[in-house]
Amino acid sequence: MLRGIGDDAAVVRADPVCVVSLDVAVDGVHFRLGPASFADAGRRALAAALSDLAAMGAAPGEAYLGLTLPPGTREEDVAALFVGMEALAAEHGVTVAGGDVTSGPALSLAVTVVGWAGAAAELCGRDGARPEDLVGVTGALGASEAGRAVLEGRAAGPDALVARHLRPEPRLRAGRELAAAGASAMIDLSDGLATDAAHVARASGARLVLDARALPLAAGVSEVAAALGLSAVELAAGGGEDYELLACVPPARRAAAEAAAGADGLTWIGRVKPGSGVQLAGAPEALRGFEHLV
Amino acid sequence: MLRGIGDDAAVVRADPVCVVSLDVAVDGVHFRLGPASFADAGRRALAAALSDLAAMGAAPGEAYLGLTLPPGTREEDVAALFVGMEALAAEHGVTVAGGDVTSGPALSLAVTVVGWAGAAAELCGRDGARPEDLVGVTGALGASEAGRAVLEGRAAGPDALVARHLRPEPRLRAGRELAAAGASAMIDLSDGLATDAAHVARASGARLVLDARALPLAAGVSEVAAALGLSAVELAAGGGEDYELLACVPPARRAAAEAAAGADGLTWIGRVKPGSGVQLAGAPEALRGFEHLV
Repeated sequence: MLRGIGDDAAVVRADPVCVVSLDVAVDGVHFRLGPASFADAGRRALAAALSDLAAMGAAPGEAYLGLTLPPGTREEDVAALFVGMEALAAEHGVTVAGGDVTSGPALSLAVTVVGWAGAAAELCGRDGARPEDLVGVTGALGASEAGRAVLEGRAAGPDALVARHLRPEPRLRAGRELAAAGASAMIDLSDGLATDAAHVARASGARLVLDARALPLAAGVSEVAAALGLSAVELAAGGGEDYELLACVPPARRAAAEAAAGADGLTWIGRVKPGSGVQLAGAPEALRGFEHLV
Repeated sequence: MLRGIGDDAAVVRADPVCVVSLDVAVDGVHFRLGPASFADAGRRALAAALSDLAAMGAAPGEAYLGLTLPPGTREEDVAALFVGMEALAAEHGVTVAGGDVTSGPALSLAVTVVGWAGAAAELCGRDGARPEDLVGVTGALGASEAGRAVLEGRAAGPDALVARHLRPEPRLRAGRELAAAGASAMIDLSDGLATDAAHVARASGARLVLDARALPLAAGVSEVAAALGLSAVELAAGGGEDYELLACVPPARRAAAEAAAGADGLTWIGRVKPGSGVQLAGAPEALRGFEHLV
């Protein structure tokens, strides 16, 4: 950091390759103040942006916040928002290096994150999946969507689901390690497994064949799904904002990828095949709304 | 540009030093749709962000747009917004490399711009002004604020003022050239000369003594000011969003700075002195609202 907040722009020393993502979160659209605290809102907006760097295998560097505050926002709420964001930034060695604050009709956080790599070859896009690659996901699925249902009183479930919904964890370490271990393609699960797998399939010009029975379900997801009249697979494959990583991995790199994921865990859920689209096999009767995938 | 729109993040080759600024523009706060077209809104938001890079003397690189659209926004309006932004980007060799689009209660544009330099020493902050430096401004002042008054029907005036308000020009070339010519401090006039000069004074630990009679007034500003019951100096020193540059220049670099500003022009309006604050001398009777500066 050569120049920080207080000049016209931030100035930082660059590595050879710069990775940038921008994510906007609006109250009432991406989160709801009330159930979500101001600290949650700050943390979540940064987490969503950093998750894109994780999916590239980039090392996170700086974050910039464009903050829009509605009339009557209290100073202590703004302070809490910064505390929530700074706490996550500190966990990952990210510097909140600048931004802009303005007034507007709703609380909105536009977070730009800048990551770095020593060479473009260290990074991993969506477009490198090749037939016979294994398809894995980190962590467990469905927690955020199930947590939202619990938070909104539509189902009963463990507090851990709610926490996961309000305070997602970007898989930055796993993303870098998986890229280094030879993953051929990665994406973060922001829109949901079904949708995000389709993004990889389209970008790679390949077909992703996933086994619905293999999906790692977060604890409590099955029960919440039942209370909502859904199958657990519907909730886990359709629900967004888990911010886990989907990684395609050449068979020869299987053990390296498992080691790379480390404590976050990596569950193999399918294979890349020639063709296009996503096939979510194994539980077709439970896939209302995902018929197009089966 | 190694990876662009369509992956999780944009990937670009970096120069050694990275300069980042973020600017948020909200309909009804920073501009008003109706008087301002969608194309104007897109162009203006990028211009405001690029102006910060100009003030650092950075070479502009990429821009990222976080776009919030209210319900009912028409596709052709979004297209016009992008056309307006892309037109300005093309003028300055800027790549609009990514972003995020979401829904929300009002049109909002959060623009992050990334600029580059070969070394930190090529850049120019707000904090380098030293006693005896000359103080200059590019272009002419007051056009944006006068144009706003014309646009809102509060005064009559030339169309050029309205155009300048709706479509400001970031002084990117002049900023780079002035930094290279040895400017000791720079800032862009987004808040208005009086306020922005005070930012330089505070950051530099010096006093800026400005001559109100020397301020370069845009054509028509005096007439609009008179119609509003203001002096031209009040309008030119108090009105924001001219996006001209204020540069402090050591006396030995005077000729180099004048040559650097080129066709944008550079008018000497004062001197840096020991002390603190801004002194706007020469027309105290005309400075209602700026008594604290005199």
